[in-house]
Amino acid sequence: MPTIIPSIRAKHSFAEKEGFALECGGELRPVTLQYAVYGELNAARDNVVLVCHALSGSAEVADWWPELFAANDFFSIAPYCVICINILGSCYGSTGPQSINPSTGRTYGPDFPLVTVGDIVRSQREVLDHLGIDRIQLVIGGSIGGMQALQWAMDFPDRVDNCVSIAATPLGPMGLALNHMQRQVIRLDPRWKNGDYGDQPPALGLALARKIAMCSYKSAELFSTRFGRNPNRNGENPWAEPNARFDVSGYLDHQGEKFVQRFDTNSYLCITKTMDTFDPVRKYGSIHAYSRIKARVTLVGISSDWLFPASEVQSLAGELRSCGVDCIYREIESSHGHDAFLAEPDKLASILATRLSPD
Amino acid sequence: MPTIIPSIRAKHSFAEKEGFALECGGELRPVTLQYAVYGELNAARDNVVLVCHALSGSAEVADWWPELFAANDFFSIAPYCVICINILGSCYGSTGPQSINPSTGRTYGPDFPLVTVGDIVRSQREVLDHLGIDRIQLVIGGSIGGMQALQWAMDFPDRVDNCVSIAATPLGPMGLALNHMQRQVIRLDPRWKNGDYGDQPPALGLALARKIAMCSYKSAELFSTRFGRNPNRNGENPWAEPNARFDVSGYLDHQGEKFVQRFDTNSYLCITKTMDTFDPVRKYGSIHAYSRIKARVTLVGISSDWLFPASEVQSLAGELRSCGVDCIYREIESSHGHDAFLAEPDKLASILATRLSPD
Repeated sequence: MPTIIPSIRAKHSFAEKEGFALECGGELRPVTLQYAVYGELNAARDNVVLVCHALSGSAEVADWWPELFAANDFFSIAPYCVICINILGSCYGSTGPQSINPSTGRTYGPDFPLVTVGDIVRSQREVLDHLGIDRIQLVIGGSIGGMQALQWAMDFPDRVDNCVSIAATPLGPMGLALNHMQRQVIRLDPRWKNGDYGDQPPALGLALARKIAMCSYKSAELFSTRFGRNPNRNGENPWAEPNARFDVSGYLDHQGEKFVQRFDTNSYLCITKTMDTFDPVRKYGSIHAYSRIKARVTLVGISSDWLFPASEVQSLAGELRSCGVDCIYREIESSHGHDAFLAEPDKLASILATRLSPD
Repeated sequence: MPTIIPSIRAKHSFAEKEGFALECGGELRPVTLQYAVYGELNAARDNVVLVCHALSGSAEVADWWPELFAANDFFSIAPYCVICINILGSCYGSTGPQSINPSTGRTYGPDFPLVTVGDIVRSQREVLDHLGIDRIQLVIGGSIGGMQALQWAMDFPDRVDNCVSIAATPLGPMGLALNHMQRQVIRLDPRWKNGDYGDQPPALGLALARKIAMCSYKSAELFSTRFGRNPNRNGENPWAEPNARFDVSGYLDHQGEKFVQRFDTNSYLCITKTMDTFDPVRKYGSIHAYSRIKARVTLVGISSDWLFPASEVQSLAGELRSCGVDCIYREIESSHGHDAFLAEPDKLASILATRLSPD
């Protein structure tokens, strides 16, 4: 696949004076969002695909979801105009814990405020306004990206034509527990220092949090196929030595080590809290608020996802339909677990093809 | 239910001089095992039920599995003679990391050797020999207790009449990963001190390991029913405060805090490694070794168990049958996950009633 280069890679800043009020209280002043645009906005301005990234993603969607740009991509928009905006709280160019807190002159660090998916979506709207974009042909994302897609359809019903939310619901108690424990693991690391870790981040803690998360992104079935009970491939003998590892543990350790090279710990803590608080109807006071949605909605579950069980996604689709929303449910049959939306792009494409092809 | 008191509560020591050789190398000298006997051995010495405990259990089986002694118990042996022996590596009276290492005069601590389920079973045989017991009417256990039950039937085929192994197979890669991460969490705690923590154990690390384990002992379905997305019952508001918890997290924190009051960290590390290495045919070199078994075997899976998936238990039963073993598979339909063998005793009893009732 050829390398896909954004036509625009830029930052947009706003709320320099008035501040950006947050749902849970407090404000951010200013807000800067890093974004990337692929392709060109057409004259009718009706070819915008907004891609919402997951926890550790960035605006550079072609880097982490290149299949979106494949010749047989499932949104048959040509020429497309794909936009992706790094979320508030992240560490890839947008305002987050590594940004300067104007009230102290130092980075926010652990004092970065609690941001909701609603705040993220509202901040993204500022970027689209800045680009002169009123309507989104399609908003799509998986995991916390799917939360954003659904929140877009809820909060700005007149701006969204199609919404595809993959493997996303309000997080159930197992997911809440896993996020809680991940945050505790990070805070157990002696380098944590209440979040003021400077350039010595709690790498062991963050790596371990990532490993716990990785287990929730995959499935036992996938692990069985891929690793079985094989010893670690470097030759360790877990049957003879107390600290020797099996293959799966060597794999997870490697993934943890890679992750800490590219992600900020305070951002990780913030975004897991953002996930926890996602509940698209909460601020409207009732489940009937789904009736606000005007977009055609497709909710996609993944058969082996145990972080966001397919049955929960399916139930959510039923709730939307009961509120009169044009919503269908589709399921990816996969052993890849939650990660299937990235790991099995062909299956996603075939599920979405009929729903998203022009009438 | 009335309190059940053991008829014998004692220790048996052996291998004082010759040492007890371990499968992975090294030896223990001496070995002391704490055991409890409930009821009396009959004249024919054929009424022995050996109960094998799980990771954090003790010899006092009436404390953690009182339903075994209920009037409608599923093993219709009266008068019964139930024996339970605290496993090697534990901290409830048997030789483990808190025992004195005769070669140093100090506790073993982190130097306690790697013990296999085979070693545990072989050490238990010493206790039965000491009590003059040649045959076991029934060996039963769940989780690592189920591993022991199966190992008993493999290693001492002439001594076991019935074997019931619940929610136990060689641990799959998801379980191996969870154990690996739990050990890493413990070692991340600044109080770990390479295992020489004295009377200041790494309580936060051990508690966190226990919480991770708790998630694997339960099911997402159970958590959904029990906790949903409720805020922690002490009134914290997780939608407004970054460190406020949901109900499930408050529950897990409480469970973690309780556990560290009653369990030794080095024992926890040892026994999770013992679980990892369980593979009843490994030392025999081939799966055909299951043909050694003469006992009637019942393998029990739990529908919602994701640590030891029911499908794996069922596959294991098929392997035993293909080796000519009189083995049946039964499944507990439960949302309780791995813990169902303790949480749903009535379902277990009804599954086992026909299999274990006298002919």
